[in-house]
Formats: sequence, C-alpha cells, structure tokens
Amino acid sequence: MTPNKGFSVQVKAAQEKTGGLINGSRTGLLRLAHGVVETPIFMPVGTQATVKCLLPEQLKEIGTQILLSNTFHLYLRPGYEDIRYYGGLHSFMGWDRPILTDSGGFQVFSLSRLNKITDEGVVFRSPLDGSEHYFTPELTVEIQEALGSDIAMVFDECAPHDAPESYIRQALKRTYEWAKRFHAVHSREDQMVFGIVQGGVSPILRRESAEQITSIPFDGYAIGGLSVGEPESVTIEVLEATCAWLPEHKPRYLMGVGTPELIFAGVALGVDMFDCVLPTRSARHATLYTSSGKVHIKAAKYKRNREPLDDQCDCYTCRHFSRGYLQHLYARGEVAGMVLGSLHNIRFLTAMMEKIRVSIRENRFDAYRKAFFDRYHSQIGLG
Amino acid sequence: MTPNKGFSVQVKAAQEKTGGLINGSRTGLLRLAHGVVETPIFMPVGTQATVKCLLPEQLKEIGTQILLSNTFHLYLRPGYEDIRYYGGLHSFMGWDRPILTDSGGFQVFSLSRLNKITDEGVVFRSPLDGSEHYFTPELTVEIQEALGSDIAMVFDECAPHDAPESYIRQALKRTYEWAKRFHAVHSREDQMVFGIVQGGVSPILRRESAEQITSIPFDGYAIGGLSVGEPESVTIEVLEATCAWLPEHKPRYLMGVGTPELIFAGVALGVDMFDCVLPTRSARHATLYTSSGKVHIKAAKYKRNREPLDDQCDCYTCRHFSRGYLQHLYARGEVAGMVLGSLHNIRFLTAMMEKIRVSIRENRFDAYRKAFFDRYHSQIGLG
Repeated sequence: MTPNKGFSVQVKAAQEKTGGLINGSRTGLLRLAHGVVETPIFMPVGTQATVKCLLPEQLKEIGTQILLSNTFHLYLRPGYEDIRYYGGLHSFMGWDRPILTDSGGFQVFSLSRLNKITDEGVVFRSPLDGSEHYFTPELTVEIQEALGSDIAMVFDECAPHDAPESYIRQALKRTYEWAKRFHAVHSREDQMVFGIVQGGVSPILRRESAEQITSIPFDGYAIGGLSVGEPESVTIEVLEATCAWLPEHKPRYLMGVGTPELIFAGVALGVDMFDCVLPTRSARHATLYTSSGKVHIKAAKYKRNREPLDDQCDCYTCRHFSRGYLQHLYARGEVAGMVLGSLHNIRFLTAMMEKIRVSIRENRFDAYRKAFFDRYHSQIGLG
Repeated sequence: MTPNKGFSVQVKAAQEKTGGLINGSRTGLLRLAHGVVETPIFMPVGTQATVKCLLPEQLKEIGTQILLSNTFHLYLRPGYEDIRYYGGLHSFMGWDRPILTDSGGFQVFSLSRLNKITDEGVVFRSPLDGSEHYFTPELTVEIQEALGSDIAMVFDECAPHDAPESYIRQALKRTYEWAKRFHAVHSREDQMVFGIVQGGVSPILRRESAEQITSIPFDGYAIGGLSVGEPESVTIEVLEATCAWLPEHKPRYLMGVGTPELIFAGVALGVDMFDCVLPTRSARHATLYTSSGKVHIKAAKYKRNREPLDDQCDCYTCRHFSRGYLQHLYARGEVAGMVLGSLHNIRFLTAMMEKIRVSIRENRFDAYRKAFFDRYHSQIGLG
C-alpha cells in the first residue's frame, strides 16, 4: 500500500434518526492513485470506456470525481491487451481522474450464457459472437491490473436474488474462496481492491457473507446483489442489516444503485459510494431529473415552454436552453438532445451528492433529505 | 440598411494564376446583426436548429463564426410560429453569433412531392406526413423574418441540372420574378437578403440569370444549383463563368459546397461563403478529414494506433485521443465517436479557411493551395 492510497472518515453525523434509520451518514476522503475523491460520491458509468454521450471535459465541468468502467465489456472489446498497449484505461479514454472497474462478475452472470460454474471459475459464452471464455479470480485480477483502474473489484458469484437459500449459501462459499484467491494474487500497489458482500435478501446470509469477506483485509467493501428486482423497503432493510457488519474505517460501496431514494437511504446507513447506469440511460430515453421530480421531456406539452429544464440547476443545459428546445431536439432524434440530457442528469446527481456532503458536515443531513424529497415528489412547475 | 450591416473587401490577391484560374481570391468582413464574419468562410449546417452532434459552446471553441439553418425543416417542425414565440432562432437554439437561413427552395424541390408549380408559388406535400403546403416568395420572407436570421435567402426554383434548356429558361424567368417579389416585401432591417443565381451548367443561362438577379439590389449573391451531380471540372467552369458577372463589392456565396477541392477553386474565383452538410454527415459515418487525406476511422487497422487523428490539428479530439480510441468508439456505436468526429471535421474546415484567409493577406494563396493538396492527396501516415 502506497502512502497515497487510503480512506479516512472526515465528519460523522450525530446519531439522530433519518427516515426511520439511525443516521450513520459520514463524509470521507478516498485517496487514490489518480486523485482524492470526496465521499459520499456518485460514480457515472462508462461501460465501453466512455460515459455514454459525454466527453471527459464535460464530465469534469460537472464535477465528476471518479467514474466506473466495466471489465466484462472491455475484456470482450477492444480486449484488455489492447488497453494495456495504450498504457491503461486512463490513457486510452483520456480520463486522468480516478476510475473504478467492476470485476465482470455481474455481467458474466446476467448478460452471457453460462456454460459451467465450478469452484475454479466460470465458463461462459460471449453475448456478441457466442465465443467461449473462462473467467477465474486470477484472470480478473490480471485484466483489472492491465486496465490500471484505481479500484479493482473482486470476482464474485452473483446468485439470482430469488434463488433458494441452499443455492445462495453455496454461491457465498465460492465467492469467499474466490475473494481469498483474488486478494492473494493481486499485486498492483497503486490499485485498491474492494471485496463484495452478497447474500441475496436474507439478513442472516448477508451477515455470514460480511463476516467472511471482511475477514480478508480489502481496502473497501461493496454490497452487491441489491436493487435487482426486490421491493425498495427490502433493499433498505437488507442494506441496514449488512452495513451493521462492515468496518467503520473502510469505504462502503453500494453497487448499481442510483435513485435519489436509495442514495439517501444508503448515505444514512454510512454508504460512501454509489454507481448506476440509470441517469445516462434515462437521458437517452428523454427522462430527465429535476428538483421537482422526473420529466419526460419529449412530451408535446413542452413544445412551447421557455423555462429552463430545472431552474435550481447550474449545468450548461439548464443555463442555456429551454424545455421547448430540448423537446424539439428529442422529438427530432437529435444527438444534441441526448448529450444535453445526459449532461444534466449526471450533474443533477453530482450536485445532489455535493449538497449531501455539505449537509453532513453541517449536521443537517436529515433536514436536507426532507427538503429534497418535499420538492422532488411535488412535480411543481412541471406542467 | 443599418450601419452595422455591410460587406467590405479587405485584401484582394494580386492577379497571379491559381490552378489554371485567375486568382481572384479576397478576404472581407461581413458585418451582420449578430457579429462580424471574416470571409472567406465555411458555414456548418444546423438543419434542425442544431449542428448535428455538436453544442453551441463546442462550435464556438472551434472558431465557428456563422452557421446555416434550414427554413424548410424548421417550417415543418417545430414551425416558425413556435420559433417566433421563443424570440427567434438565435434564442431558440442558444446561438448568439450570425445565422444564415436558406429559403427552403432547394428542399421543396428535392425532398418533397411537388403537387403544382405556378408563377404564384409551389404546392408540395410534406415528406413527414403527406400534409399539403404552399410556399410563395412572400411566405418565405415571413418565415425567415420570424426566424430572425442574419441573412435570408430568396425563394428560387431549383431545376434539375440535367433539365432541357427550355425548362431551365422558364425556371429562371420565374426565379427572377420571385426574387423581385421577395425583395419588395422584405422589411426586416437587421437582416441581409441574398439573391440566388441559377442556370444549370450552361454558361449562357448563368450569365442571363446573373444579369437578372444582380439587377435587384440584394446584399449579396449566391450561386445555387452547382455540385449536384455534374463533374467537378464542369462545376468549376460554370462557377468561373458565373462569378464573372457578379459585382465585386458584394459577398458571393457558393451554396452546398464543402469539399476542399471546390472551396479552394471557389476562393480563387472570389467566392466568400460556403456551406455543406458533408463534414458532419461524413463524421457520423466515420469518415474524417486529415491533413494527409480522408480516413475511415472505423477500419480495423486503427485498432492499435496511438497516433492522434491528425497531428496538424489543434482540436479537442486530436489533442486528447488516439486513432485507436476513436476506432473503438465508432466500432461500438458510441455517440462520443460521432461527437469527436464531427468536432474534428468542422474544425478541419474552419482551420483551413483561417489559413486561406492568412495566405490571401500574405499574398501566397496559391502556394498554400499547392502545399495543402500535396499533403492532402498523400495519405502519408494513414496506414
């Protein structure tokens, strides 16, 4: 571990309640090879080594401190040896701030046809051309070290959330063994490694998994396999049960979660990091976030609307264009619409995280949460 | 005419030859309601009130001084009354520099089903929904005054370039009558109006048309109906014959032309303005300009290429990314590829025009032309 790598909690909330949960919110600093990240943080997703529709300079302008990219996709195309040839992912994609890479585990289990799962690894077929591939914990270390991300994620087995307990228990055992192997072979000193707690929706299994995974001295711990179809109340319940077993001094990352509702709940439970494809994917389909709620900007009712998309927002889109112009761009299928929408949605979540951090420092996180949702659920001024 | 509106030739080349043509190249200043444009100039096209894939701030960064938008498309959607509601096209699309609008003539004749052409106007069906519309010179004045462009173009009849002489002669007569009506009803003082010379590929008809159109005191004169399928040598021959009949002190605009070959030929003949959809359309299909020639950047041979797209170019794309990364983005169908490619192609032509202007001022236009094409035809370093 280099001296430049580490995590420290800065401010921890006084323990009032927030939304029925003990308020365990905290701010922190995550020191990584490519810079310091302020937590809690939302990470935009750049699946194919690009955050869809946005350029690195635009991401910087809207305050993006770290982004996520996908091992599974980059392994298939262009291939990790290609990215190694470019000197790693940062250099390849022209992004000099931190990057977190997932391990490909989630995609292997959700996007590809599985041929065989053994204790050794997973044989799967590429969803692109049907070619056969073999992922082991060791290979996903090699790939992520070649990509050169600031944070690598362990390779885990993602059992379906509605699988029987016996199946999940077997998957957990394997995930634990894989995590030990991953940690043992990982060698890149400028790269953090995070373990992943699984266990479906069972608080008992989550506790078992947390105890196993936190017994390995990872740099941080992620909560995987949540918000995959179960009701939001269950997500929060399981998240609360899981966070109770995570060490306080290590960063906590709730994978694949990006709705304001779950981000606020996660922050209250002491989660430091979030990622989600939703803000960019929604933007491509004309669903935009505003402080008064979500908007389908392609709707004909916005055809003659001179208002900015969100008068509380400071992004380029909201400073320069009307809802009516955005309606026009989306209705015409113009790329500029998707660009302006993506820019705004990422800025919306990034600004929300900035305000969350300030509210924690000023010991008024719960008040900010209430004010945010009072307005967010109001649809005020959205027509 | 307001004092802020006008055109002045700044530097006129000494009369050496260039590429077999008398060198009539010149630099000028076109003072318009939204700013001063340096000529010769290339105007990117923003058909639907957006230059495809690019934002206004990006266009400014790469030196765009004026852009073109299309009356026909904006009339159909969102409608010119909508744009009037927003205070005009500048305000609607967030562009505060000059805009030229065409009259819709070309699109009425090329994109829609014509129902009837009379001396009064043209009845056509919308290519979008088959609805019937009626364009007259008077209506195209009204639309363009509502759009509030800095330069409006007259409504003309665009005869097919291979039509018989008798047909073209009749179209010219009508175009002349329409031009007189257009000029008579036009009233917006902050908007220049340009006449359009037609006449197909016949130097005799071009002269007739030029004499007719220049008898009307327009603010500038355009050459329409060229580069629509005829060989490049014919285009240049007809252009030369036409320019000979245009007044020296008024701006000259060669419509729809954007290849380096025809731009250099046009500049040599004293043309001041050009526009073309090609650089943005090509970019969306992965064809990018470089100082060493055109590149199909999606080709597999660029998969491992760390070179910038064009090491002579100063654009964001060339400063930050490799050909290999562009290949990856285009091969994956990522929007960022089209954005970076469009940015580069427009910058390439904009920078070429800047260098053309400097070369004219320094009386070495022909030397620059030769140096440009020596390299442009070389494919040096393109693999």
